[in-house]
Amino acid sequence: MISFKNAYDQVLQHILNLGDETVSLLESTGRVLSEDIRADRDFPPFNRSTKDGIAIAFSAIEKGITRFKIEGVLSAGMPQQTLSKDTNCFEIMTGAVLPEQADTIIMYEETETEDGYISISKTPNKGQNIHRQGTDEKEGAILLKKGTEITAAVIGVLASVGKNEVTVKKLPKICVVSTGNELVEVEDKPLPHQIRKSNSLSLFAALERVKITPTLLHLADNQAIIEKELEKALNNFDVLMLSGGVSKGKFDFIPDALDKLGITKVFHRVAQRPGKPFWFGVQNEKQKVIFSFPGNPVSTFANYHVYFLPWLKKSLGVEAEKHTVILDEPVQPHPTLTLFTQVTTACHEGKLTVKTLKGNGSGDLVSLALADGFIRLPQGETEIPAGTAVDFIKAS
Amino acid sequence: MISFKNAYDQVLQHILNLGDETVSLLESTGRVLSEDIRADRDFPPFNRSTKDGIAIAFSAIEKGITRFKIEGVLSAGMPQQTLSKDTNCFEIMTGAVLPEQADTIIMYEETETEDGYISISKTPNKGQNIHRQGTDEKEGAILLKKGTEITAAVIGVLASVGKNEVTVKKLPKICVVSTGNELVEVEDKPLPHQIRKSNSLSLFAALERVKITPTLLHLADNQAIIEKELEKALNNFDVLMLSGGVSKGKFDFIPDALDKLGITKVFHRVAQRPGKPFWFGVQNEKQKVIFSFPGNPVSTFANYHVYFLPWLKKSLGVEAEKHTVILDEPVQPHPTLTLFTQVTTACHEGKLTVKTLKGNGSGDLVSLALADGFIRLPQGETEIPAGTAVDFIKAS
Repeated sequence: MISFKNAYDQVLQHILNLGDETVSLLESTGRVLSEDIRADRDFPPFNRSTKDGIAIAFSAIEKGITRFKIEGVLSAGMPQQTLSKDTNCFEIMTGAVLPEQADTIIMYEETETEDGYISISKTPNKGQNIHRQGTDEKEGAILLKKGTEITAAVIGVLASVGKNEVTVKKLPKICVVSTGNELVEVEDKPLPHQIRKSNSLSLFAALERVKITPTLLHLADNQAIIEKELEKALNNFDVLMLSGGVSKGKFDFIPDALDKLGITKVFHRVAQRPGKPFWFGVQNEKQKVIFSFPGNPVSTFANYHVYFLPWLKKSLGVEAEKHTVILDEPVQPHPTLTLFTQVTTACHEGKLTVKTLKGNGSGDLVSLALADGFIRLPQGETEIPAGTAVDFIKAS
Repeated sequence: MISFKNAYDQVLQHILNLGDETVSLLESTGRVLSEDIRADRDFPPFNRSTKDGIAIAFSAIEKGITRFKIEGVLSAGMPQQTLSKDTNCFEIMTGAVLPEQADTIIMYEETETEDGYISISKTPNKGQNIHRQGTDEKEGAILLKKGTEITAAVIGVLASVGKNEVTVKKLPKICVVSTGNELVEVEDKPLPHQIRKSNSLSLFAALERVKITPTLLHLADNQAIIEKELEKALNNFDVLMLSGGVSKGKFDFIPDALDKLGITKVFHRVAQRPGKPFWFGVQNEKQKVIFSFPGNPVSTFANYHVYFLPWLKKSLGVEAEKHTVILDEPVQPHPTLTLFTQVTTACHEGKLTVKTLKGNGSGDLVSLALADGFIRLPQGETEIPAGTAVDFIKAS
């Protein structure tokens, strides 16, 4: 049995190099950029009006002119015009191109219109109300770096520079494998000794949040079937994510089957609760990784968040965010195990505090549905006082 | 011009009653439950072993028996057996049903096996290592309430109780309308006075995060076209989300068009930056809501988060979470406007601190891509010192 720290480090040492692929812009949300994104022109691309009003040449102001003949009306989307003389002005709308020979914009609120002329009531500052060409970004500048996660705001930047296709990190192909003769389908009525599948469906939902649609596979507790099906799955997927089949029971065939299939066990059993019988293995040449989680819902869910998500982030070249929270009440660590305790969070005055959920052990799905995440409590003998900051793992 | 507070309250007074629909379990992630979910049986449904080991009758221990004949092996998924006498035991795996007449489970680690007999090395406690029927939940108990957001863990609960179809709140049908002759498609090469569409694509990506796939519509700055197309859109959608077309310029036809179509303006212009020209209107009889955001990317993005998302949550019957963060540096409020300032966040010892991003006004898309969200600064004259907690709106 190895420590949490050791297990975590080993998992992160076995990331996959997934390569890149090109997807359409609107499919790229939630993915990770595999290319630097540069400005294809200056931003803004022209001297842009930031107000509705009139555009004038400031030289007119210096000459004492305060009344201007309207030469035309400019709106966003019109090509650039030229102010023919400094006794004239253009009416100009927000987003429109500043005319040549004009250098100052005065908002309507500071003007009066009469008979095709506009008078100003206040002396402007030279150059005001103009968002100048290239002041946000110069053409060629790197706007977004490789490794950036594509959020809604990033989609806006990609659109502006014409990226209707984007090169992103490939996602791993994942097969979620459930095992256990006690499991029946969701739509079935279980016999008294049976239960419905739930872990693989939870994992499906969690993986969809990171843009992965896994394949679901169920295996009966039969060594021959398990070996055959796992072999097929290893050929077709980058990652197998198993739940159940790795405790020390007589019917847990998974570790043996994986061994026969040439998977190297990196570790089995971690000094943690929940999720002690976590089994992790790899096939380095073929670039395969196997996360084999214990069958209890809370164990699987905790291990997915504690190990798989940071592994995925690192495989995608993204730094995992670290979160800490403040204990609202004292908690008792375990003398030899790292604990992942379900908590609810509350935010007050910029501080994130947590209360532990009194779940009924690792089988209690309902408390899991109420939890906002897990706190990580290192092994220890003495109670950790309220007010202490501890590591937090947010639930999907 | 009305205050932010007034505008926010008005928006939340015009929520839609969207009704319910039934979707398949795996499509329900991210939706909101419209039904209470009850346990269809006890959880766990039987006395369940929590260890791999042996099941015995504690009466044997009381009689001083420490060596048991193995009567059989029980794994998860096998129907319940009966222990025939208290000098016998069953080997039992995690998840298996406790046999009748047995009441205590001893883990393998505390036993020794020899010739079909198992001896125990330590006196057990009566009833140990059993997850008792109904101790998590009793049959008929409400496990999840109407209004619960469907997370990955909730999917697990729904699966366990056999909900392969779930009744959820309907989502509004949304049309995202961009306007402006200056806009060209992402794949087009803009002329010097043109820019590519970006707002509508950002909104598309943001709405997808809340499980809404909007329809995108672009309208040229032409009053007749705008009226005709908005009328069609009003017939087909619950919500129009417009960007551009609501500042005071001569070419902003939207408010007039909406008025002609029988939409009641609730307000236009809010004492806020960015996003001052925000226009909000409704058609109460036909249950239509119109969010008309200013055309600048930062304005649209801020308004979407500040107004639309809380509106959506309330329409779905979900309480919006409130977040606060701590200023890492002093900030200057505006004497008459509520400010929504772009920030990056950092978490340290359970405290969420923020630094403001020096964006170049409301046109700067790139700074928006770097921001984790906005802080809300109420209007005021005096600098707000570092260390103050302020409201935070997280970016999608």
